[in-house]
Amino acid sequence: MNRTLPSVLDRSRALVASPLREAVARLAPRLRGPVEYHFGWVDELGRPTESDGGKNLRATLALLSATAVGAEAAVAIPGAVAIELVHNFSLIHDDVIDDDRERRHRPTLWTTYGVGAAIVVGDALVTLAVETLLEQPGRAGARATRALLQATAGMIAGQADDIAFEGEAEVSLDDCVAMARAKTGAILACASSIGAILADASDAEVGALTDYGMHLGLAFQMVDDVLGIWGEPEITGKPVWSDLRQHKKTIPIVAALERSTTAELPNALDAAGTSHAAAQRAANLIEDLGGRSTTEEIARAELTAALDALATVRLDPVAVGELEALAHFVVGRER
Amino acid sequence: MNRTLPSVLDRSRALVASPLREAVARLAPRLRGPVEYHFGWVDELGRPTESDGGKNLRATLALLSATAVGAEAAVAIPGAVAIELVHNFSLIHDDVIDDDRERRHRPTLWTTYGVGAAIVVGDALVTLAVETLLEQPGRAGARATRALLQATAGMIAGQADDIAFEGEAEVSLDDCVAMARAKTGAILACASSIGAILADASDAEVGALTDYGMHLGLAFQMVDDVLGIWGEPEITGKPVWSDLRQHKKTIPIVAALERSTTAELPNALDAAGTSHAAAQRAANLIEDLGGRSTTEEIARAELTAALDALATVRLDPVAVGELEALAHFVVGRER
Repeated sequence: MNRTLPSVLDRSRALVASPLREAVARLAPRLRGPVEYHFGWVDELGRPTESDGGKNLRATLALLSATAVGAEAAVAIPGAVAIELVHNFSLIHDDVIDDDRERRHRPTLWTTYGVGAAIVVGDALVTLAVETLLEQPGRAGARATRALLQATAGMIAGQADDIAFEGEAEVSLDDCVAMARAKTGAILACASSIGAILADASDAEVGALTDYGMHLGLAFQMVDDVLGIWGEPEITGKPVWSDLRQHKKTIPIVAALERSTTAELPNALDAAGTSHAAAQRAANLIEDLGGRSTTEEIARAELTAALDALATVRLDPVAVGELEALAHFVVGRER
Repeated sequence: MNRTLPSVLDRSRALVASPLREAVARLAPRLRGPVEYHFGWVDELGRPTESDGGKNLRATLALLSATAVGAEAAVAIPGAVAIELVHNFSLIHDDVIDDDRERRHRPTLWTTYGVGAAIVVGDALVTLAVETLLEQPGRAGARATRALLQATAGMIAGQADDIAFEGEAEVSLDDCVAMARAKTGAILACASSIGAILADASDAEVGALTDYGMHLGLAFQMVDDVLGIWGEPEITGKPVWSDLRQHKKTIPIVAALERSTTAELPNALDAAGTSHAAAQRAANLIEDLGGRSTTEEIARAELTAALDALATVRLDPVAVGELEALAHFVVGRER
């Protein structure tokens, strides 16, 4: 990790933590409790916990996008809060959809509070996110709200593709990359530009930051997909082999399937849910067929494209250095 | 039914049908198909069907709220579309939460397309609803978007209470009425005023129409609760006894429980899911204890309050007559 990065992440956490809690405090008590549990602020009995509450990546991007265009980081706070709310809405619903029982080393919200509660809590968070931005005055507030809604709609469409792909035999690598662009890229692109929008930046500045975030989002998803198969569950906090068990069409799997000429890999994937050894065998086959290296190549190419996007307009050099460090961190991370 | 009412409902259907389909057509294909199925426009294979697509109550209220303040009904169309989208988002998620397999005499969306699809399709509809209103220009568009979000947040909080009540032994009639006010009243209040908001009406006009809709919403929920126990499934399109089977804390049940002094009704409710005869016995006990008559009294009182609200400001008399007819229809309906 770049030496300046921990302080960048800590600085954004210090700025966003209280406004995020204040936003959540506006929810009705029956909704607030499960949300506070999900964020790791309390345990399932409502007792405060010691938690860092995740990587804080999206909020940090939002704040940096304001300083990148010469504004105070504080301008971006409502954007950072809204992005975190939308991101966590998607996590809460995704965990129901994917039947995932564990996140950040704890039982997921639906496991603790039930599927019904998880659905309405997610619904409440996306509504709260839009309300948070709509309260921002003037042209910038409306522009930021539109950007958030567009990104949210893109993310939801990507999620629909992701679900559909699980049941489809023929999914191309291009389809998968397009799905990742929608599912992960759209919201990171919004995070990386919403502070600039709230700072009333030019279309060129907002466009460059959006491009940076879109490429970063794709790189992020590539790394996520690699960690989903070859990551250490103790570090990622996700259950081992869950992507393989659920017949997810992740990039490494689809890349390997495209190069596979026999029934060996399809058969191994069908069997992957039956035992640890079968999942390990499928993972090895994917790696042998170049699924891992192809995905890591895409991640590196997207990282380069993200960094290049920052060079297309004049931005604050300190913020650019921090955005670059963040991009390197995303691609090098282990969780 | 009032003689003018069918033509009022038909007129609003004619105005809103195409804009609603155009809004839905903006969704990605994987989201659009299930939504069109849910609305009854196509069957599960995507073939067009002959369907009236529901009562069209909310869209009609939205249009009437514009004509009530002297504007053209067309001003309200984006509001009518947004309200219909939010309403159907809530139906789609509620059917998952309540494990309901049938709606409008057809398998529910999740039954046909799966729980995951139903969750993301609902998410897509609420996002689309807000986008539809946010595209409206000027102060009126922003005011309408805020009203929609506030109503949606209220509805979601009410839904969270509804879920929580199922697991709670002691729920008071007041709690239940407050839940219905949030769950059903908030969105009908918004439907009944959003056209006026888009027509840039005064706060007094919007306030009177909001009050009308809130009272109408409570009356609506009371009638829904009565139909949930004593309605004809062939007419309502809902599975028989589902409220009793699911241990829902509806108004008739809670009103009867408040008057019950023995364990007879609690025991009958516990057993209601076991057979048709047991459910019938519970329904009879609820009726004997005054659960039905109490609920019908509240419905009539809310109907009166809704009509009174219309008299507090000067509104277009033709529109007022139609709003009155609609209110009488809501309370007298059988589905």
